[in-house]
Amino acid sequence: MTKPATMKAMTYYGADDIRFEERPTPAIIDPTDAVIRMTKTTICGTDLGIWKGKNPEIEATARAKTGEWTGRILGHEGVGVVEEVGSAVKNFKKGDKVIISCVSRCGSCENCQKQLYAHCRADGGWIMGYMIDGTQAEYVRTPFADNSLYHLPDNLNTDVAVFLSDALPTGHEIGVQYGDVKPGDSIVIVGAGPVGMGVLLTAQMYSPATIIMVDMDDNRLAMAKEMGATHTVNSSSGVADAVEAIRAITDGRGVDCAIEAVGIPDAWDICQKTVKEGGNIANVGVHGTSVNFELEKLWIKNLKITTGLVNANTTGMLLKTCECSKLPMDKLATHHFKFDEMEKAYDVFKHASENKAMKVIIEY
Amino acid sequence: MTKPATMKAMTYYGADDIRFEERPTPAIIDPTDAVIRMTKTTICGTDLGIWKGKNPEIEATARAKTGEWTGRILGHEGVGVVEEVGSAVKNFKKGDKVIISCVSRCGSCENCQKQLYAHCRADGGWIMGYMIDGTQAEYVRTPFADNSLYHLPDNLNTDVAVFLSDALPTGHEIGVQYGDVKPGDSIVIVGAGPVGMGVLLTAQMYSPATIIMVDMDDNRLAMAKEMGATHTVNSSSGVADAVEAIRAITDGRGVDCAIEAVGIPDAWDICQKTVKEGGNIANVGVHGTSVNFELEKLWIKNLKITTGLVNANTTGMLLKTCECSKLPMDKLATHHFKFDEMEKAYDVFKHASENKAMKVIIEY
Amino acid sequence: MTKPATMKAMTYYGADDIRFEERPTPAIIDPTDAVIRMTKTTICGTDLGIWKGKNPEIEATARAKTGEWTGRILGHEGVGVVEEVGSAVKNFKKGDKVIISCVSRCGSCENCQKQLYAHCRADGGWIMGYMIDGTQAEYVRTPFADNSLYHLPDNLNTDVAVFLSDALPTGHEIGVQYGDVKPGDSIVIVGAGPVGMGVLLTAQMYSPATIIMVDMDDNRLAMAKEMGATHTVNSSSGVADAVEAIRAITDGRGVDCAIEAVGIPDAWDICQKTVKEGGNIANVGVHGTSVNFELEKLWIKNLKITTGLVNANTTGMLLKTCECSKLPMDKLATHHFKFDEMEKAYDVFKHASENKAMKVIIEY
Amino acid sequence: MTKPATMKAMTYYGADDIRFEERPTPAIIDPTDAVIRMTKTTICGTDLGIWKGKNPEIEATARAKTGEWTGRILGHEGVGVVEEVGSAVKNFKKGDKVIISCVSRCGSCENCQKQLYAHCRADGGWIMGYMIDGTQAEYVRTPFADNSLYHLPDNLNTDVAVFLSDALPTGHEIGVQYGDVKPGDSIVIVGAGPVGMGVLLTAQMYSPATIIMVDMDDNRLAMAKEMGATHTVNSSSGVADAVEAIRAITDGRGVDCAIEAVGIPDAWDICQKTVKEGGNIANVGVHGTSVNFELEKLWIKNLKITTGLVNANTTGMLLKTCECSKLPMDKLATHHFKFDEMEKAYDVFKHASENKAMKVIIEY
Repeated sequence: MTKPATMKAMTYYGADDIRFEERPTPAIIDPTDAVIRMTKTTICGTDLGIWKGKNPEIEATARAKTGEWTGRILGHEGVGVVEEVGSAVKNFKKGDKVIISCVSRCGSCENCQKQLYAHCRADGGWIMGYMIDGTQAEYVRTPFADNSLYHLPDNLNTDVAVFLSDALPTGHEIGVQYGDVKPGDSIVIVGAGPVGMGVLLTAQMYSPATIIMVDMDDNRLAMAKEMGATHTVNSSSGVADAVEAIRAITDGRGVDCAIEAVGIPDAWDICQKTVKEGGNIANVGVHGTSVNFELEKLWIKNLKITTGLVNANTTGMLLKTCECSKLPMDKLATHHFKFDEMEKAYDVFKHASENKAMKVIIEY
Repeated sequence: MTKPATMKAMTYYGADDIRFEERPTPAIIDPTDAVIRMTKTTICGTDLGIWKGKNPEIEATARAKTGEWTGRILGHEGVGVVEEVGSAVKNFKKGDKVIISCVSRCGSCENCQKQLYAHCRADGGWIMGYMIDGTQAEYVRTPFADNSLYHLPDNLNTDVAVFLSDALPTGHEIGVQYGDVKPGDSIVIVGAGPVGMGVLLTAQMYSPATIIMVDMDDNRLAMAKEMGATHTVNSSSGVADAVEAIRAITDGRGVDCAIEAVGIPDAWDICQKTVKEGGNIANVGVHGTSVNFELEKLWIKNLKITTGLVNANTTGMLLKTCECSKLPMDKLATHHFKFDEMEKAYDVFKHASENKAMKVIIEY
Repeated sequence: MTKPATMKAMTYYGADDIRFEERPTPAIIDPTDAVIRMTKTTICGTDLGIWKGKNPEIEATARAKTGEWTGRILGHEGVGVVEEVGSAVKNFKKGDKVIISCVSRCGSCENCQKQLYAHCRADGGWIMGYMIDGTQAEYVRTPFADNSLYHLPDNLNTDVAVFLSDALPTGHEIGVQYGDVKPGDSIVIVGAGPVGMGVLLTAQMYSPATIIMVDMDDNRLAMAKEMGATHTVNSSSGVADAVEAIRAITDGRGVDCAIEAVGIPDAWDICQKTVKEGGNIANVGVHGTSVNFELEKLWIKNLKITTGLVNANTTGMLLKTCECSKLPMDKLATHHFKFDEMEKAYDVFKHASENKAMKVIIEY
Repeated sequence: MTKPATMKAMTYYGADDIRFEERPTPAIIDPTDAVIRMTKTTICGTDLGIWKGKNPEIEATARAKTGEWTGRILGHEGVGVVEEVGSAVKNFKKGDKVIISCVSRCGSCENCQKQLYAHCRADGGWIMGYMIDGTQAEYVRTPFADNSLYHLPDNLNTDVAVFLSDALPTGHEIGVQYGDVKPGDSIVIVGAGPVGMGVLLTAQMYSPATIIMVDMDDNRLAMAKEMGATHTVNSSSGVADAVEAIRAITDGRGVDCAIEAVGIPDAWDICQKTVKEGGNIANVGVHGTSVNFELEKLWIKNLKITTGLVNANTTGMLLKTCECSKLPMDKLATHHFKFDEMEKAYDVFKHASENKAMKVIIEY
């Protein structure tokens, strides 16, 4: 099978304007690139945000760099087969099955030397489906291929492999690791979306004793119970009630770690009102506005509060864990579509709650 | 010399009402107590806050516990000589010269087992000069003496020893350690008061390359330079200018660690606007109001933000370092008074800026 | 029920001389003491070592301190009910059900301030059943009761509670924590005795991908499989074969962490020959002779090698984990005896292999 | 100035056979390479070891790979100017002044992803002057240039810059960081050679209170005092005396960290006999034989023992620290030679003790 000249791809043109259309098939540009033929991909909440017009910097940056705007192929997740590699790529060759990381990294800049790959200063970080064309296409070009691809083991469920692109590393690194989740801990996860579920699943790798999931959607809370939450709290009646419920579960003491996985002031507020002295708040959510930080109460509490974009520096570790784990990582995949049903997949994911959708898997 | 029945003490009665008056000399209550004859003490910004009426909980708690309010002797810092010890005290005996830690700890509760002594759940934490009578007196009762006193070495400057009660451990633990200050780092310290200076001095134990001190008082900035700051910024013209100055010093990159040592929204704001991606904000200041937390910009920056009250778990380490250090710890002491000049000492410290005062030492 | 004047106790008099005999019931000595009425205890390999005469320092120290030798009651593990507490004990009262930690600690000395409780410099550390009378009796005096006892929750299996005295914390702290066992890791545990099994059980709290258990006893290896080992290696045919088998399991790479849980040169040798570059060797075994350390091969390998006696600083964490864990902690208990069958219990445990015994539980 | 076809270089041919001779000037091979025109280099103890015939694997590996043996240019340290870069090099261009790291790394392999660059699995690690031609020449080819070079700041002493290639990072990472040297600590450094001095200098970045240097050469001990040692011990009279002297300095307690910087059994033995319970032994020395490890005494002591080859992951941090530090890093350079005096430089360094030589700097 030779690489065709054009291919189908889900392309963003502007707010409320995405098109499933024919595009030129990508080729190697830099010697460190690879081109991957996609076999499975998925849709992220971030893709919906772009669609809704939250990221006008995409068009602006393109125009600033190239003087024109020809749309941007969406997507930063998926698995596939290596089709071509650049001359400097050493670890991958045509035909290799791979997992594509959502984060690209040069490996050499000041930030990459600190393993702060999310902030690679050499055109890396999260760029696919954002600053360069992404994975919701038949082929994708991946920069810094040696640093951004992972060999896909035969014994790994390929749906789970797709979650290793973003959902699981994000939950693990920004939620669980930054939040220092330890055996015996009590934790609360505010937000039972795909990333909150990624936190829930990877947190269990460290054996916390109490895992409270908070959401407004009873169906999602039921799913959380199946995936390992020990308690659930429906926060529809407001922050104060949710806080009271969480305190009741924890003997009035609050939690060792509160994880924000929504990106709104109320979710932050639940976290800052339920974390115990000496505890952690790990913010995973993407926020659009400032929040009120109750330093007049919290200055004394010896807290650690963290924020961040995934570095994908634990993808290899998670891959090994997923190969042998009994955790129900595969339950994240609630819907499966063929690639030519991409528009339908977007529609289902856009109305996730009424469709009881968590992650939708698109197969080629 | 036998312990007299009464003694002089600086006592708080209510907002704007402190009295230097005769009080009963304290005695052992619990078997883990000691009574110390003070030889040097000092005044903390917190004492001024109590005087101004910021801590009505002092009277309220006393009334709730005992049904009456007879005032509270101020102070949680100082050195002295052991006068008496309770039957369970093993490490100290009458005549030992000691440093008194501002934090009392039972050593056994859930929080003490985590070294979170600031939040000791057995009537510990910061209690002297707050929930029980303090050190601005001729004698003081110290609970949990084995855990709260340190042997004062003969070769240690006794002014510096006084700073080991609170200013140096607070700066070190809540500023420097929580802020992960490392060799080669760039840091900003916002606030050149005694605690900011404690941060400045103890930060140098870890060899940061760039130390920027921010304050509105040029005299204090000059003192900071003498104590080791590599750069200073006068923030009188507002947050935006200070931020620009800090960015200019750091080649536009911001700092690895921003340390808030004031306790007001503007100081917090300088910190959140100058910290580099992957960096830390360590809040040391005591805040009276909430602050605006720019999560819409900072969610992506992989920050660590910390808060806290000193645990005094590094007092022993600091003591050993101060014994041999060439750092000018002693320069913190700008004024010396006799104990019967206590009211004058308060007056000078209350108007610290015009008196060019940093820490005032009171000798008995 | 009042405390009787005398009680039955298993007492050590010298090499090969232990006697199950009547002894005076202990009383409070220090204000920080408690006296516990035992309800369950067990026997440790260390007790067998004392019986065999490996610890002549027991008698020597007693004679040096008191001028006489009246035997020493064995045992440092178990659960019971508080019978009496000293005047300075705050956290426990008569009637409380408790777990007794094998490590006593003052909480105040230089080492306790570092959480190095195993080396408490104030007559703490491991002393029960060693430097003072122990738990294989109807009653035991526990020093520093506030720091050395844990409230026994009603929902915790009491056999598992007994393992929280020593076997689980030792495996967890000295094997798993010192060995930095992480999700996805490959580890080898050399020695499938009670402590090796404690390592095996607690390691799973951190989700390693590959757990290889090595022993010469096929029955113990089969038990290890039931308790979570992913691979087993019978090392009867020598170090070289065991090393080869471990390398084969790990694709020739060796393990991230090798844990020595026997205390003999061959077991150490398997560890140093199978650890991967950048990996860890955690020595848990009690050794009687020096070992050969192949620094000519290992200087370059960026290894971390650790040793140690349990600090019991994770007992509280383990307790919370055991309350909710699905790990088969209870399978460690292979035999149950009544307290008056103590001699039989010792006999079975002494011949553990032929009796397929792991831990024997003694009920009162 | 154009790159000449041939150049002078110090080349190893076999035991006791090194030749300062004309060799072909290197060229770019891989797109990630750079070629550097050297301006300063130095000689390492390892170079002397190669000269003495300790590394027959150099010839053997060359023959196995290429079928022939044409000698190997020595050296893995130095500073220079970029002459050429390969097509994939992004961070450096012709004319840039650079520091050359002794460790090359691909940045992508399993070990590089863990920052274990010393064990890069893609032909990296320590290879210059060992598995490929090195820096004791007019030009050198550096693989993985983006990961292995550092921009040389104008304000940095160029002698100190040379020490950033190996001596300072090795001392810092394998001695100080692995040994967890902290403010207030007591440490012993066994061996006052260039690497021991690198430990001594970089340890002071963390403010230990007591630094004991041990060596048999009084001149070197005097140099150590000038560079910051608080105490020195001449170990000529044997291990037992040295151990006693160290214990006397530390009030009989031993040290928090013992650092082996020689590579012989006696130096190891001093370390294992003087480390305090809960302390660390950091082995920096290159050993040729096994050592006796007293596990029968040390199993109980909660030690951490580390080994390793430098990863050079702190070179950037050290560079920033050296730019502003008041530590006398430059005193390491005791002798300066011109490049055409290379043979004389080797002779002086070979007889370092009688020449009172520490590091010799060779200028081009």
